[in-house]
Amino acid sequence: MLPLFRALLVPSLLLPFVPQTVLDPGDLRGFTSASAKIERDWEAKFKAIPEPARLREAMRRLSARPHHVGSPYGKANAEWLRDQLTSYGWQASIEEFQVLFPTPKERLLEMVSPSKFTAKLDEQVLKEDPTSNQKAEQLPTYVAYSADGDVTAPLVYVNYGVPADYDELDRRGISVKGAIVIARYGGSWRGIKPKVAYEHGAVGCLIYSDPKDDGYSQGLTYPNGPWRPSDGAQRGSIMDMPTYPGDPLTPGVGATKDAKRLAVKDAATVMKIPVLPLSYGDAQPLLAAMTGPVAPESWRGSLPITYRLGAGKTTVHLKLSFDWSLKTLYDVIGKIPGSTYPDEWVIRGNHHDAWVNGAEDPISGAVAELEEARAMGELLKQGWRPKRTIVYGFWDGEEPALLGSTEWAEAHDAELRQKGVLYLNTDGNGRGYLGMEGSHSLERFFNEVAKDVEDPETKLSVWKRAQLHAIADGSAADKKDARTRGDLHIGALGSGSDFTPFLQHLGIPTLNAGFGGEDGGGIYHSIYDSFAWYMKYSDSSFVYGRALAQVVGTGIMRAASADVLPMEFGNLSETVNGYVGELKELRTKVADKIAETNKQIDEGVFSATVDPREPLKAPKAEEPAPVLNFAPMDNATDQLSRAAQRYEKAYASAMASGASAAQFAKANDLLKLADQMLLGPNGLPLRPWYKHLLYAPGLYTGYGVKTMPGVREAVEQRRWKEADEQIVVAAAALEREADLIRRASAALEVGKPVP
Amino acid sequence: MLPLFRALLVPSLLLPFVPQTVLDPGDLRGFTSASAKIERDWEAKFKAIPEPARLREAMRRLSARPHHVGSPYGKANAEWLRDQLTSYGWQASIEEFQVLFPTPKERLLEMVSPSKFTAKLDEQVLKEDPTSNQKAEQLPTYVAYSADGDVTAPLVYVNYGVPADYDELDRRGISVKGAIVIARYGGSWRGIKPKVAYEHGAVGCLIYSDPKDDGYSQGLTYPNGPWRPSDGAQRGSIMDMPTYPGDPLTPGVGATKDAKRLAVKDAATVMKIPVLPLSYGDAQPLLAAMTGPVAPESWRGSLPITYRLGAGKTTVHLKLSFDWSLKTLYDVIGKIPGSTYPDEWVIRGNHHDAWVNGAEDPISGAVAELEEARAMGELLKQGWRPKRTIVYGFWDGEEPALLGSTEWAEAHDAELRQKGVLYLNTDGNGRGYLGMEGSHSLERFFNEVAKDVEDPETKLSVWKRAQLHAIADGSAADKKDARTRGDLHIGALGSGSDFTPFLQHLGIPTLNAGFGGEDGGGIYHSIYDSFAWYMKYSDSSFVYGRALAQVVGTGIMRAASADVLPMEFGNLSETVNGYVGELKELRTKVADKIAETNKQIDEGVFSATVDPREPLKAPKAEEPAPVLNFAPMDNATDQLSRAAQRYEKAYASAMASGASAAQFAKANDLLKLADQMLLGPNGLPLRPWYKHLLYAPGLYTGYGVKTMPGVREAVEQRRWKEADEQIVVAAAALEREADLIRRASAALEVGKPVP
Repeated sequence: MLPLFRALLVPSLLLPFVPQTVLDPGDLRGFTSASAKIERDWEAKFKAIPEPARLREAMRRLSARPHHVGSPYGKANAEWLRDQLTSYGWQASIEEFQVLFPTPKERLLEMVSPSKFTAKLDEQVLKEDPTSNQKAEQLPTYVAYSADGDVTAPLVYVNYGVPADYDELDRRGISVKGAIVIARYGGSWRGIKPKVAYEHGAVGCLIYSDPKDDGYSQGLTYPNGPWRPSDGAQRGSIMDMPTYPGDPLTPGVGATKDAKRLAVKDAATVMKIPVLPLSYGDAQPLLAAMTGPVAPESWRGSLPITYRLGAGKTTVHLKLSFDWSLKTLYDVIGKIPGSTYPDEWVIRGNHHDAWVNGAEDPISGAVAELEEARAMGELLKQGWRPKRTIVYGFWDGEEPALLGSTEWAEAHDAELRQKGVLYLNTDGNGRGYLGMEGSHSLERFFNEVAKDVEDPETKLSVWKRAQLHAIADGSAADKKDARTRGDLHIGALGSGSDFTPFLQHLGIPTLNAGFGGEDGGGIYHSIYDSFAWYMKYSDSSFVYGRALAQVVGTGIMRAASADVLPMEFGNLSETVNGYVGELKELRTKVADKIAETNKQIDEGVFSATVDPREPLKAPKAEEPAPVLNFAPMDNATDQLSRAAQRYEKAYASAMASGASAAQFAKANDLLKLADQMLLGPNGLPLRPWYKHLLYAPGLYTGYGVKTMPGVREAVEQRRWKEADEQIVVAAAALEREADLIRRASAALEVGKPVP
Repeated sequence: MLPLFRALLVPSLLLPFVPQTVLDPGDLRGFTSASAKIERDWEAKFKAIPEPARLREAMRRLSARPHHVGSPYGKANAEWLRDQLTSYGWQASIEEFQVLFPTPKERLLEMVSPSKFTAKLDEQVLKEDPTSNQKAEQLPTYVAYSADGDVTAPLVYVNYGVPADYDELDRRGISVKGAIVIARYGGSWRGIKPKVAYEHGAVGCLIYSDPKDDGYSQGLTYPNGPWRPSDGAQRGSIMDMPTYPGDPLTPGVGATKDAKRLAVKDAATVMKIPVLPLSYGDAQPLLAAMTGPVAPESWRGSLPITYRLGAGKTTVHLKLSFDWSLKTLYDVIGKIPGSTYPDEWVIRGNHHDAWVNGAEDPISGAVAELEEARAMGELLKQGWRPKRTIVYGFWDGEEPALLGSTEWAEAHDAELRQKGVLYLNTDGNGRGYLGMEGSHSLERFFNEVAKDVEDPETKLSVWKRAQLHAIADGSAADKKDARTRGDLHIGALGSGSDFTPFLQHLGIPTLNAGFGGEDGGGIYHSIYDSFAWYMKYSDSSFVYGRALAQVVGTGIMRAASADVLPMEFGNLSETVNGYVGELKELRTKVADKIAETNKQIDEGVFSATVDPREPLKAPKAEEPAPVLNFAPMDNATDQLSRAAQRYEKAYASAMASGASAAQFAKANDLLKLADQMLLGPNGLPLRPWYKHLLYAPGLYTGYGVKTMPGVREAVEQRRWKEADEQIVVAAAALEREADLIRRASAALEVGKPVP
């Protein structure tokens, strides 16, 4: 039936007057048609400004010397960034915090038996890389927040060092109690490895980069290619950030000069055992000397050795000590005050600190941010005035523990909860496809932004290229969605960058973006993450740096000047429904797995299939999984779905027929709370700092996201009572969200008074 | 409903009289209860006879020196085996054939650029392995039926060297025309690699053993462990056996002294380019020197290098020449004449030739065969007389091309088609699980045999252990079948051992058996497949050798003395139905894949997702797949299924109430044709020697089986017209089979005259 006839058949009283354009409410989410036209003009001007040559020069300058937390060049960079912002016409300042950031005093790793070997623990200077020789300023290879320690113990290979790996060791009769474990990078965030090792009784932990993952197996090694050379080691943080990030001594509050501080020994997130990262050059002699059973097939890397589990006579001595003094953070904050809603803040950030020179991580993202700021400065001169206040942060101390962002967010928590309407993060950049993650109420908005920026390599929109990539690489379901769904799915955010305090602690609607997928490499957190490397193996013409500035700048400008904040809840509702489906499947899968294992134990499968030359214990029988009550969640998602539909109608009507400024203002006041409704008053089990009930890093996976984490992790870890409780908690959050959406709908509903 | 009430409700005229015992027709397939008791007594006596110490001594003796085709010790072994059989009371003789078996005269492989390197092509003598130093008698590392050649050309890495690998190379703009390819072992039978390379224009082919597959990645290398050391190389045949096996000069006929012979240049199965196998010690310098694109992830082995595709300046020189003279085969044939059906032959074989010393391959299987023969000799002295004639073959020349078995089968083809009722093959043995493959009309029979032999490690029956292994390692469907189906599935036979001429050329019902799954190792076809290796790393106490003799001997005795041949067709029908389902799925999968690729080409997916730094051509659009007419096959499987049901009733009734000897004889005359009905008069497309329409080695995979090969390969290779034709051909065979089964049913139907 055609719309015309349908309208004739429906009694007009039952339908509000809806002009034809409601079906096509204009072309910019959050804008009336009139506003959209103005916005598009400014965006077009904006997109023409960023220059690859300037991105390149800024990268060269910022990565010219090591600039980790507490380094002279880190401070110099912060001051330079502040001065640049000021010169562009921004209000800019540096905000300081005092944080615990341990740096190495002593590092020793030696094999004691069966033969002697002392690890080099040093990355070679390369004549092809002019910054690789800045030894005096470089942090040596280490991981931050390891304990001091001096231990000598047998070595056990634990694969990725996640809990399931210890189950496998246990079936082979191998315990790590009193041992030093050696884990390989990958399979989880690095901080999970020593935490799990410690929980199993290990007294030390080594983490090495296997060449299978980012060394010669992947391609030629630096300087002949982009991949990790044999003495390249991955620095990093091993703080227990899935419990809380930021300064370990000031959880939940800003680490200002006078903040009340815990003693280091009382800080829950500092590791309890010594931990050291290794290159594969240093790891190979240790692994080659190991005895014990051959490692399972999936545990083997690509060193030319037989990977074995150890617990024999291979003994190593690990001695580490650190300088535990406080260091100063320099967060650079720039602002452009909003003309209409000065107390609504659109925030954008990228960190400026690095482990060493950090040309890719983080400078390739930071220079895009700086170039956006310059471009907006140009627009200001031309008369552009964003409706909302724009806040640009260049965070210090992301690498050790999201320090700069977390302390700033905690120091300003009440103000940010009040004023923050969006946080948009980047953290490095490369060539390829636009990655988009964040709050699903912003999925539609971000898709629209991505449709308006050109991909440098294909001249398609970056959205179109991402769509075709999803078709090329996705599962059958992904392909279908990419082809038929109007919006591409954006990913959910776990952790690993500065969005965490904004999204998961404060509940500010958040996005994260970056290009990638074409540049491989193995220089992550090494001295080889340098300008020389980036110019040879990544976005060397800086066209993707410009594209990133265009995407993010467009998003910031658009969010800052929208008449009504650009949330859309149909995609959120659909996504949440998907999560609920996954949780139900997960319970079934866990239940089936338990039942199958128990059945096999009864049948005698394990004793019948063991090779007497390779003893393997049967797994332990487990309690069968109970049925969970998902009804509260099903009811809540139903509410959410209906509220989202109502909002879309109200929004369309308001945009088309013109709601009043007061209606928009009222809606904005509500919409900015879209993620705050999803926070739990008590946060997540075992980690109250994390309050978001839809998105969190995994407690036992690290950066990787767990969606609906309270329920999901309870099911994964067979805490069934907690799972049922967390279903109720998450359902209540969804009910709050539905209620907020209904109130925002009411605010926009045309012809009705503002409630 | 209980059976009693059911019987009362059904008009008796519609049902034959079926006594209660029909539902439990006795405990040995093919035997009346009375015969079963006698048979079980003899089997019990038989199983007590084989002795591990004798198996060990026979292995030591037979593997004491290299014994390949044409070697003095090979002839000596044949004479010793014949004399052993004679001493056991068998009629034993040696049958000779004259076959083409090329041996190396000259082998040279050197890298010409970018640097010089000459391959060692030699396996190191180990003091731990006393037969490794028999250099004068060892065949050097080579592959049989390579062409002579002297070529210098650029090197290209082709992964496994199967057709799909060349598609990947083509997308990267790499051609092998005029090149020498280097492929790794695995992914297909070795002979496929040079064949496909030649079809793509390569002028030479190297095949190396990557340590990922059977070297240090899998475990410690010999002599410290069972796996392949760095200079261990895999000899083998590269004759085009999927076209026809046996002597290349006498296809289809026995290679007797006076047989008419082709010229070597006209032999279709001799390779057209020079081919050489390499150790990973010899391969590494070549692979490390290669340039060009990095190999796709799944192509990479575990050498400590970056695997690259080549086609750059890496040039090698390969020079090979062979002695193309005829050599003599010595097949050992032993017989025990049958008492009742002397013209029904139950045949059993294992080869005796090896590439070098061959303790595992084939001697570990041959000694079981010999010990069975000794045990049967003991029984003969105690008065045992099998109803049918038992024929034991120890084949020569299996390694080069199934020479001994094929020439014997071809020389006696008419007699074998007439007399052969079963062929049971083994080819080496290890510790672990009983592997069972063969004609599915014998699935029930072989399951019963396996239930009557004890597993040495678990003291369960070998059947039970195999069942629990299927539960442990199988897919969900496999688990379910293993738990609920009365019989374990037996595998279908491809090729790679001496069963091929009997099953796939002559249509004799065939089984193949062996224990394995616990012993790993990398000594296959090397000088390290020795008594020393076997004693350390395999069935060193020979308890699995004894179990193999018990399984196979029991099977042979049982088939030889059954009142009616132990076929059962319900499992065959179910299996064939499964194949038809797979073929339908395969067509859908191929059709979907073509449609998806074509769609992605239209959408521009390939051009949008290519990294300009790593050019990758889009695949070519293909014609959409037509719908195939499976109706003839569906009708035929329906016939087969109903015939199988009828046979089970007739069989049960005959066993329970006693059919006449004439009825049994008539049924036997038909049942022995169970696989001959499944032969196609014209054989398979492109390879008429292979006549079986259910089982064949893959034309482009080698040993691996293709079930319903005519249809399956046509679909895989998108020859749609041929697929429709082959459906008709296969359906006709199934109709013939159904007809045979109906006739056998009629023969057994009690109270009816023999038709």
